[in-house]
Parts: sequence; C-alpha cells; structure tokens
Amino acid sequence: MSVLVIGDLELEGGAVLPGVEIAYEAYGTKNEQGDNAILICHALTGDAQAAAWWAPLVGPGKVFDTERYYVVCSNVLGGCAGSTGPQTRDNFPTVTIRDMVRAQKRLLDQLAVTRLQLVVGGSMGGLQAIEWAVTYPAFVQRCAPIAASAQLSALAIAYNHVMRSAITLGGADGLALARKIGMITYRSFDLFEARFGRELKRPHAALGETEFQIESYLEHMGQKLLGRFNADSYLCLLKAMDLHDIGRGRGGAQQALAQIQADVLWVGIDTDQLYPPQEQRTWARRLARLGKQVTYRELNSEYGHDAFLAEGEQLSLIISDFLQETGGN
Amino acid sequence: MSVLVIGDLELEGGAVLPGVEIAYEAYGTKNEQGDNAILICHALTGDAQAAAWWAPLVGPGKVFDTERYYVVCSNVLGGCAGSTGPQTRDNFPTVTIRDMVRAQKRLLDQLAVTRLQLVVGGSMGGLQAIEWAVTYPAFVQRCAPIAASAQLSALAIAYNHVMRSAITLGGADGLALARKIGMITYRSFDLFEARFGRELKRPHAALGETEFQIESYLEHMGQKLLGRFNADSYLCLLKAMDLHDIGRGRGGAQQALAQIQADVLWVGIDTDQLYPPQEQRTWARRLARLGKQVTYRELNSEYGHDAFLAEGEQLSLIISDFLQETGGN
Repeated sequence: MSVLVIGDLELEGGAVLPGVEIAYEAYGTKNEQGDNAILICHALTGDAQAAAWWAPLVGPGKVFDTERYYVVCSNVLGGCAGSTGPQTRDNFPTVTIRDMVRAQKRLLDQLAVTRLQLVVGGSMGGLQAIEWAVTYPAFVQRCAPIAASAQLSALAIAYNHVMRSAITLGGADGLALARKIGMITYRSFDLFEARFGRELKRPHAALGETEFQIESYLEHMGQKLLGRFNADSYLCLLKAMDLHDIGRGRGGAQQALAQIQADVLWVGIDTDQLYPPQEQRTWARRLARLGKQVTYRELNSEYGHDAFLAEGEQLSLIISDFLQETGGN
Repeated sequence: MSVLVIGDLELEGGAVLPGVEIAYEAYGTKNEQGDNAILICHALTGDAQAAAWWAPLVGPGKVFDTERYYVVCSNVLGGCAGSTGPQTRDNFPTVTIRDMVRAQKRLLDQLAVTRLQLVVGGSMGGLQAIEWAVTYPAFVQRCAPIAASAQLSALAIAYNHVMRSAITLGGADGLALARKIGMITYRSFDLFEARFGRELKRPHAALGETEFQIESYLEHMGQKLLGRFNADSYLCLLKAMDLHDIGRGRGGAQQALAQIQADVLWVGIDTDQLYPPQEQRTWARRLARLGKQVTYRELNSEYGHDAFLAEGEQLSLIISDFLQETGGN
C-alpha cells in the first residue's frame, strides 16, 4: 500500500483539511496516455486492498484485468485504513461522498491518470461511483454503481441512525453492536435460514441458557470488526452516506444526473433489503428517461446486499458484458 | 382491565411460578355454553386493551363482533401491563410462548370459556395463536396467525439478539435503541421513503448538523416506549420469541402441526421484512400438506410487518371471509 499527500482539501461543508493523505493500491501498469485506469471504490468497512476483498474480479485475466488496466483503489477520506480521517486528526470535520470523490480525483491527477475507463463500487463504493460520474462527467467513460443509490434512502438513513446510536451508547462495544446490526441488513432472510436456522451453540443447554448459532456468528462479526476499525471513522462514514445526495447544490437529482456522460451499468440485487431492487430499477429508469446510456442488471443471489462481494463470478460476467458492449473489452 | 390469579404455574423450563396473575380485558357477553369466545393475543409491546390497539376489528358489528362473541385479550405472562412478569417478580425465570398459552388457558378456564371460536394474533400474538392450536387442539375451533411462524426464523432471532445487546449495553437508553431497531424492521422501505424520504428536521442546518425526519421519528418512538415498557420484560419476551418452536419436545414441527384440529387462516404481508411472505406461504403449505384445513391470504400493504395493525379494514375482510367459510358467521 502507498500513501500520497494530495494537499489541502476544501470540503463541501466549508472547512479546509490541510495536508490530506490518501492511501491506495495500484495494480497493473498505466499506459502512456494515462487512460487505461479503473477506479474501484470500497464500501463502509472496506479498504484499498481491492485485490484481496474483490479477488474474483481483480487480477490478470479477470474482469478488472491487471494486464490491461491500471486498477486503482484508495482508502476513502475519513476512513481508517491509511487515509486521513478521524483516527489521524482531532476534531475531524464532516465529510461527504463528494469530498471523498474529490480527494480521489486529486490522487488520480497525481498518478497522471487522464481518464477513467470505469469507476465501480458496491454499497458506499457505489455511492462514490455515481457521484464520480456527476462531478467529473468528462473524466468518466463508464460508471458501475452496484447496490447503491443517487440519494440515500430513508431506510438506509434509519439503519445508519441506529448504528450511530449504538456507538454513542457504548463506545467500542457499541461499534460491535453497530456491526452486528449492519451484518443483518447486509444479508437475507433465506441465507440466514439456510446457514443458521435454529441451530444451537450448545444443543443440550437449558432453555434459559439457549444461544443460537446466528447469535454466535453476529457476536463474532461484531468483535472481529473492533480489531480493524475505528468508531469515530465509522461514525464519520455513516454521516457521509446519510448526506449522499447527488442533487445537493445542483438543482436536484434530475439536473445532476443530466450531467452524466458515462455509459452506466446499474446493478441491483434481487434479495437486497438495504438497497432493494425496486429502488435500483428506479434509478436506472430515471437515467434512461434522461436519455443516458444505461444498462440495468440484477444479481440473483440468496445473499442479500453483500452479494456484491459474494457473487464474484456472476458480477464478473455482468461487468464483462458491459465492458464489451461499450467497447471497453 | 381485570386481573385474575390463575395459581402456580409450572413452566416449560422446569421452574414453578407461584400465584401467577393475568391481566385481561373481556368485551361482549359469554353465552351459557361458554363457547362463543374469541381470544386475541397481543404482540411484543402490546397489552390487553385489544379494543384500543385493534379498534377497527373489535366492537359491535365489527369482525370480532362484541354483540355476538365474548372477546378476551390478556397481557402475556412476562409482560409489564398487569400480568406477572419481571417487573413484578425478582429473578423472573425464562418463559416460553407455550407458557404464555398455558397461562391464558388457565385464565379462560376460570372465565368458564369451554371452547374458542377463534384464537388470533399478529407477530408475537401469532406465535401464541399457532401454539394454542397445537397445545389445545380440541379447544380451538379456528386459528389465525398473522405475520408469524411456527418456529422463529434465524433473521428474527438475529434482530432480537441486537435488540437484547442494546438493552444490555445501555439500560433504559438501550431499550429506546432496541425499540428504534424494532420499528425499522416493522416497517418497509417504501413506507419510509414515501413518509420521510430525505426530509430534514431543520432544512437549512449546516451539513454537519443535519438531522433527518426519519431520525426524529425513530428517536420519538424510542423515547415513547420508555414511558410504557420495562426493559426486563422486553428481554423476557424477546427470549420467549427466540425459543418459539412448535416442535420442541413434540418430535419436530411436522409432528406438532399434525396435532392441529382447528381451521387455520394463515395471513402473510407482502412487504414484511421480518416474517417475509415466502416464509408465511411455506408454513401454510406445510399445514396443507398435512391435510389441515388452511387458507392462506396476504395483506397487500406498503406498511411492512406492522400492516397487521395498520390495515384493519383489509384484515377485517379477510378474517370475516374466513369466519363465514368455516361456518362461524
């Protein structure tokens, strides 16, 4: 992992964040023109190691072919995996998805990337992807938000709110609880039913001491996050997601989306509780009505929201088709 | 509201709870044979006042016609609205849905009810309804679980787990958080989107001070529960729900369901996240395959799980049809 100092960044909220550092990974080789880049944006608790967390998609011969593309992934502004955030600065200001994107643009400028073949991401990564296509229309040739939206929904804000309450209430224990809540929303009824059902941790425990396997699993996932994530950073990113509104300061969502020049692949997930398919289709339809080049595809998965991580093969095919259809492969 | 002492109750977990009191409401008049009764079972934070919380269904000329039926609703064992529970006893033991039902049976015996025309309830009330039909097959002529199940699902256990974590973490504040989490699962994406969207509490607040209306709503709902509910009782009822398994000690769910003699109306809700329609249909199908008299109907509602409370008119028609088809009206 490398770190670049991208300089002082004036944030959407007005504050100036001096000497911002952005951690990133780059895979493959940039061509002379600097126009063979793919930018991967990570989700809430993700990091710059895209080849690790999106292994089926990133590498030689894969859909994000590192023998062909210069694949970049950076830790978001406000994150806690190498970039400037609440963990590295006191009194860290409110940042927005737009601020993250502007920081990424500075990074790409320094890396002498002149144009993006594709900007892609799932969940919070998808929020960034769509924001990219609006903020830098001429820079983005293709854009693929997955299980994301152009304005965060009331339901997603509601879940962010209770995760925030948990952290406010319990510090580190609260962060573990927030993660447990998050994990439920990232999965599906059918997945939990198939994987855990009513399995007990100790099958012969007395009624009052019953603990279900789904509980042990959630407990484990909550504790596991504590080892790699910072509560203040989590709060910072939740707020950035809440504030995600492509239309803010741009005369509304229609006006903003009208700016897009990229070919868009919008990917929904049929079992997603958090960014449900009807929401995904609505955003794709709105783009189509604006005359944009947009393809809507849906992952069929038992997984729920996390299908963008779990269904690598299916997703590779969808993205590969899109790249071919739009002349990128 | 009245309270009856139903005596000592031996619980499924083995403990004996002495001098159990059950608070109840009765509407209408019992006939001489004592066989015109309808038992309404309430949900997690409900109480015995069915004519208040289910006003469109309970009263003269309504589907639970108090000029014809003797309509009884009791506060569950372990509750905090008049019945024996953690609020009235120290070291309150683990209780199960089955224990609640056995307490209700004692109550009905004391009221000289000889048979139930119908046992009905939504959510936790529906868990009781189906448990009734299995525990007392000959006593129950009709059974209508709404947005419920014969064994609590892994997803529902998962949500109960995080609500429990919240209470353990934060006491009263934790109960408010649990309620906020619950409220999200009781509603739907579309309802929140239509009702709250991205509306702000203070439209011109600085980015960092943004508070969304959905947040104020959840905050309000959380605080509101504190005035009428007890954290220990909430924990007790969550555990009872987790332990809900019609097949425990009966050789499994099939064997248990095979005991049912009642005509069953199983009602699902198309937008229910917590007890999703595919789960509802599965339980109805399992009953049908066992040769039981079962009708499956689905509430069409934007509401989500809470449609069993919100869609009184639609639900009345469905239940009224069922009563007519099964000779009850």
